[in-house]
Amino acid sequence: MHLATFSYLGREEVGLVVQDHTRILPLSQLLGVDAPATMIEIIEQWRDLGPQLQAVSVSPDTGLPVADVGLVAPIPHPRRNIICLGKNYRDHVEEAAVLGGLTSGIPTAPVYFSKMIDHVRGSTESVPVHADVTSMLDYEAELAVIIGRAGHDIDPASVPEYIFGYSVLNDISARDLQKSHDQWFKGKSLDGACAMGPVIITADEIAYPPALDIECSVNGELRQKAATSDLIFDITEIVSDFSKGLTLMPGDIISTGTPAGVGMGFRPFRWLKSGDVVECRIEGIGVLRNTIE
Amino acid sequence: MHLATFSYLGREEVGLVVQDHTRILPLSQLLGVDAPATMIEIIEQWRDLGPQLQAVSVSPDTGLPVADVGLVAPIPHPRRNIICLGKNYRDHVEEAAVLGGLTSGIPTAPVYFSKMIDHVRGSTESVPVHADVTSMLDYEAELAVIIGRAGHDIDPASVPEYIFGYSVLNDISARDLQKSHDQWFKGKSLDGACAMGPVIITADEIAYPPALDIECSVNGELRQKAATSDLIFDITEIVSDFSKGLTLMPGDIISTGTPAGVGMGFRPFRWLKSGDVVECRIEGIGVLRNTIE
Repeated sequence: MHLATFSYLGREEVGLVVQDHTRILPLSQLLGVDAPATMIEIIEQWRDLGPQLQAVSVSPDTGLPVADVGLVAPIPHPRRNIICLGKNYRDHVEEAAVLGGLTSGIPTAPVYFSKMIDHVRGSTESVPVHADVTSMLDYEAELAVIIGRAGHDIDPASVPEYIFGYSVLNDISARDLQKSHDQWFKGKSLDGACAMGPVIITADEIAYPPALDIECSVNGELRQKAATSDLIFDITEIVSDFSKGLTLMPGDIISTGTPAGVGMGFRPFRWLKSGDVVECRIEGIGVLRNTIE
Repeated sequence: MHLATFSYLGREEVGLVVQDHTRILPLSQLLGVDAPATMIEIIEQWRDLGPQLQAVSVSPDTGLPVADVGLVAPIPHPRRNIICLGKNYRDHVEEAAVLGGLTSGIPTAPVYFSKMIDHVRGSTESVPVHADVTSMLDYEAELAVIIGRAGHDIDPASVPEYIFGYSVLNDISARDLQKSHDQWFKGKSLDGACAMGPVIITADEIAYPPALDIECSVNGELRQKAATSDLIFDITEIVSDFSKGLTLMPGDIISTGTPAGVGMGFRPFRWLKSGDVVECRIEGIGVLRNTIE
């Protein structure tokens, strides 16, 4: 199933996206007053809700045209910081050397950092340029894993049971702030410096582990192109390793890292500027398209 | 005022701590059904609530003995990751060199990282030793700043208006994980690896900027001793700089860094072990006392 959060008549609602992403069925229409109001509630109630939604019959005129509502990020207000991976595709490790690092070369353990984001932008929303704070704004197309159940010390073989679904995430980064503040946290956490969407696809729809084409283009020019099977640390390793001594929660977002081709990988650098259109695409999930304000 | 969260008859409540921290006045008794239920609600309602609580008359037998209730962390479940400073006291920068870093010497910009903590421990609660995940567990006594109002791009002169109060925070750290994962996030975020308390003291009770003695002892042996006026980047710089392009929210916790004397500063190293009692003390706020499980 493809699930989305959308803005309709001034409020955020959640729904099932059908008909090749052209129509959305609001859960409030499908389920009435007991419908979950947010994606995190959907995730928490999935054991009962999943079978109910599987049984929904879809006709061509069901629900609302997606074009008539604004898709926002599937999880616009994450409960905790977004958990991110750095240096998790081989070619990207080289181009990221400009940032420096505690260790050089291919990481021997996953590199985790967090993004504190007030309002994750959806596929029809713009991203602030923050020109007064950074002059090195960059894009990073990534596969995001959405956690479905609470757990810690998760056994590698059990990792798939903890995954609710997947989405496309653009880990917008201020390279100058990443470098000047030593740790990356501030440079990854500017207001609105994250986009996600257009939907969350449930885990049952993608063979595990996901081996999907991932691409990013800026103003129609292809910049990043790889496969999610190229991860240095794969999803099984990430979830089992990160959860050692640390409880993951339903709705937690783990973004698995970006391939080569970001703006800091070019000479001269190619930073984002106002008016740029960034499209991050993952096979089978969709296109996340954001304009820089 | 001194505010605390406590556990009574199986539920968490908030109250006013009086009589030299010996008695607590539950807000539910003072204000009835409209009383805020959590510290974050107190902070959000402070403009109206502050004057009401100032007017409360306290008699020697008011409220409950603190000894009869369990003080938990003032904010046991932060809404977002805790914002922390690294390398923010000069002597500590030297002893932390063992961790490596992107830059050496005294930082030229604040070093921010985040702690993702499910359940912050209070002054009467124990802290997990996580012996299966880390063999280098360390303590860090810190002054925590509690944000009172939403704001971004906060002018240095306006910073005091955004501060609700202060507390004592122990930024428990797994040094081996900080180092092996390159970025510090995972090594700072083990379950329960943070203690805070015993209370939040409101900003009006401390001259700004706070120049307070800060100490940490382990099993009664003094390990850290400094003054919060020794910060490399002071509270005005931290709040104004961190809020550039980034919205701080009511209830956000900013922990300002630790002075010299942590376990990694000794030769041989002195890591925490089961049964150790760590006491972090800041003049005028109180003592945070935690046993390692």
